[in-house]
Amino acid sequence: MKKIAVLGHGVVGSGVIEILMKNRRLLERQTGEAVEAAYILDRRAFPGLPYEDRLVQSIHPILEDSEVSVVLEAMGGVEPAFSWLSECIRQGKSVITSNKELVAEKGDILLALAAEKGVHFLFEASVGGGIPVLQPLRESLTANHITEVAGILNGTTNFILTRMFGEGAAFGEALGLAQELGYAEQDPTADVEGHDACRKICILASIAFGSHFYPREVHTQGITRISAADVAWAARWGGTVKLIGRARQAADGRAALEVAPMLVPNSCLLSQVSGVYNAVRVTGDMVGETMFYGPGAGKLPTASAVVGDLVTALTQPAGSRPLAWGPEKPGALQPWEESIAQRFLRVSGMDREELEAFYPGCRFLDGPEEGETALITAPATQGELDAAGQAAQAAGGRILSRITLLEDNR
Amino acid sequence: MKKIAVLGHGVVGSGVIEILMKNRRLLERQTGEAVEAAYILDRRAFPGLPYEDRLVQSIHPILEDSEVSVVLEAMGGVEPAFSWLSECIRQGKSVITSNKELVAEKGDILLALAAEKGVHFLFEASVGGGIPVLQPLRESLTANHITEVAGILNGTTNFILTRMFGEGAAFGEALGLAQELGYAEQDPTADVEGHDACRKICILASIAFGSHFYPREVHTQGITRISAADVAWAARWGGTVKLIGRARQAADGRAALEVAPMLVPNSCLLSQVSGVYNAVRVTGDMVGETMFYGPGAGKLPTASAVVGDLVTALTQPAGSRPLAWGPEKPGALQPWEESIAQRFLRVSGMDREELEAFYPGCRFLDGPEEGETALITAPATQGELDAAGQAAQAAGGRILSRITLLEDNR
Repeated sequence: MKKIAVLGHGVVGSGVIEILMKNRRLLERQTGEAVEAAYILDRRAFPGLPYEDRLVQSIHPILEDSEVSVVLEAMGGVEPAFSWLSECIRQGKSVITSNKELVAEKGDILLALAAEKGVHFLFEASVGGGIPVLQPLRESLTANHITEVAGILNGTTNFILTRMFGEGAAFGEALGLAQELGYAEQDPTADVEGHDACRKICILASIAFGSHFYPREVHTQGITRISAADVAWAARWGGTVKLIGRARQAADGRAALEVAPMLVPNSCLLSQVSGVYNAVRVTGDMVGETMFYGPGAGKLPTASAVVGDLVTALTQPAGSRPLAWGPEKPGALQPWEESIAQRFLRVSGMDREELEAFYPGCRFLDGPEEGETALITAPATQGELDAAGQAAQAAGGRILSRITLLEDNR
Repeated sequence: MKKIAVLGHGVVGSGVIEILMKNRRLLERQTGEAVEAAYILDRRAFPGLPYEDRLVQSIHPILEDSEVSVVLEAMGGVEPAFSWLSECIRQGKSVITSNKELVAEKGDILLALAAEKGVHFLFEASVGGGIPVLQPLRESLTANHITEVAGILNGTTNFILTRMFGEGAAFGEALGLAQELGYAEQDPTADVEGHDACRKICILASIAFGSHFYPREVHTQGITRISAADVAWAARWGGTVKLIGRARQAADGRAALEVAPMLVPNSCLLSQVSGVYNAVRVTGDMVGETMFYGPGAGKLPTASAVVGDLVTALTQPAGSRPLAWGPEKPGALQPWEESIAQRFLRVSGMDREELEAFYPGCRFLDGPEEGETALITAPATQGELDAAGQAAQAAGGRILSRITLLEDNR
C-alpha cells in the first residue's frame, strides 16, 4: 500500500479523494498497489465525512510519517504551501500541486530542490485544469523549438465572453450569471482582470523557453472594458474576442508575454472554444500548430490531472521527467512596448483619411455602428501603436476600443 | 555520442534526418549528448545526398552494430518491418515507429517483446501525425476510465470533405485536387475507404481499453458515397460530415468500434477541424471531454513525433512508460450490428407519416431538397436501423443516404 497525503479539502482536494475512491481498482492496476490518502490536511472540520478520521490540521504528522511518499497540494496561495512543500521535498517526498500561483512564483526553486533530492515535483493541474498540456508540451513536442504558446486559460472569463457574444449580454450581466452558476467568485478580480491567466501563461512560457517568468513582469489586461459594440464589430469582421495568454519568441530571440482580450478570427480553432472550456495552442518549428482542449477547471477534471501526476510519481523514477526550467534570466523578457502586434481599433470623431495618417497601412472595416470608424493596424510595436493613438487623440479623435489581433498560425 | 538507425528514407524518414540536423543542438541539450543517424536503410540509392555514405540496403550492419541503441522505422507495411524490428528488439535495441499498419497488426506482440527485453517500443507518430495524443491518453489521463475516443484521423479525407462543404465541390473533383496537391496518393483507396483511419482507431482503442483490436474486425465505411445533397442537408441542419473513427465503451462493457462518415453538429469542436488537420476527442469518466488537434500527416510534423519518442527512449528507463496492452480478448468487441446509434437518413418516395411507422420517435428535418424527406432516428442498434431501412425500402421508400450521428459529449 502506498500512503499519500492531500493538503486542502476544497474543490480540488475533495475531487482527488473522490477519484481515489471511485477509480480505486484502476489506480491499483496502474501503480501495482493500493493508494491510500492517509492524511487530509484542512483547517476546517468536516464532521460526518466518511474519512473524517484522516483529517489533520497540521503539516507535522505528514512530515513525520516516512511512509508518506507523495504529497498532493490543493490549498492555493504561495504561503504556507511553499514552506510546507519545500519541507516535504527535503524529507524526500514527491510533491504534486494544482496551485498555479505557487508554481508561477516559486516553480524554479521547487524544481531545483526536487532535482537535488531526487523526487518528483509535478503540476499538470496548474494550467488548463484537466487538459493534458504541460507533459505533451515538454515531452511529446521536445524535438521542437516552441515559437508560440497562446491559449484561453481562464474558464470564468471565457464563460462571460461566450455569453456576451452568444446572448448579447453586457459584461456585468454575464458576470452576474457566472457568479450565480458558481463559475465566478464573489470577488472576481483575479479572473476578470487576467491575473489567473497570467500565472498560467508564465508557467507555459517557463516550460517552453527554459527560464522563469514572473507574473508581475507581464503586461496584463482583463476583459472589463470589452463592450457590446466590440462584440458586434468582431462578429461582423468574422471573429470573436477571447481573453488570451500568449508567449511568443520574438525575432530578437527574447520572449514576448502578454495577457489581454484579443480579436480571434473564426478560422482559428481558439475562436470556437466556448463556455468554461479552455484550450492551449502550441506552435513548434517542426510540428507547426497543435491545440489542446478540455475543461479548464472544475472538481473532477482538475483532480484527474492531479491523480495522473500521482500515478507518474508512484511508477516512474524521479528525474526521468524533463519538466524543468532555470531561474529568471535577465533580458529574457521583451518589454511589452517593444513587442510587435496588430490592433483592432474603434475610433470616433475622425474619418478614414485622417486616421490613415496616424495608422499608415491600416485596413478599414465595414461595421455595424454609425459614427465610428474601425480599423486593423499594420504590424508595429505596441509602443508605436500607443504613441499613434495618443497623437490621434490629441488631434481630436476618440479611441473607443483597442484590441490586439491574434494571428492564425497555420 | 548516441548512434541510431533510420529505416526508410521516404517522407517521414527524411524528415527525421532533417530534424536531427536542424535541431541538433536542442536535441543534444535534451539527451545530454550528440545523436547521430549512423545508418539510413533504403532500397533506393540517393546519389548526391550529403549523408549518402550512411545509406545501407540491408538490416544486417544495423543489427550487428551493438552501439546502435535505437532504431527508427518509417518504411510502412507489416513486412519486413515486423521481422526486422522484432530482431532489433531481441538484440536489445529500442524501437520507434510511425507505421500504423504495423502497430495495428502487431502492436501487442512488439510491446510484449520490448517489455521482455527491457527496451522501448514507442509509436506516437502512428496516430495523428505530429499531434501528441497517445502519450497524453495513456499517461496524463491515466486516472480515467476512457469512455470514448473519436477523431478525424485521416487528413486526405478531411481535406476532401472540407472542399465539398466549403466550395461545394463534388467528391471526384475534391479528390482530384487532393491528388494534385500531393495530399492523396494515385491509388487513394486506403484513405477514402477508411482503412487508414481504421488502423488508427484500433491503436487508440487498444490503448484506451487494454487489449488488441484488429482492423479487419471493425466495421469500416469510406466517404465515396457522400454527395452534394448530404452536404447541403447537413449544413442546413447545423452540422457537417466528417470521416470519424470512434471507439466507445458500450453499456455492456464491450468496446464498440467503427469508422464511418458521421454527421457532426457545429457545437462539437471536431466539426471545425478543416483541411489536412486531424483531431482526436478523448472522453474520460473523471475529466470529461478533451481534444487534441494538429497536423495529422506531413514530413516534419510526423518526424517531430518520431524524434519526441527518440528523446524519450534515450533519456528515460524502458518500462517506466505504461504504453502497453494485451493480446486480443475474445468477446471484447461489440458486433457493429449491436451498437447503439442515431442515423441521419434521406429518403424519397415516402412521406413523414409513412416513415414514422418505420422509425418511431424520429425527428424530421427541414431541408433544402424537394421530393426528399430527411430525419434523424431515435437511438437504436445499427442492426435494428438496417432492418427498419430494409422494411421501408420493401414498402416503396428509397433510402438515398444514411449517416451515423456523432454526439456532442459535453
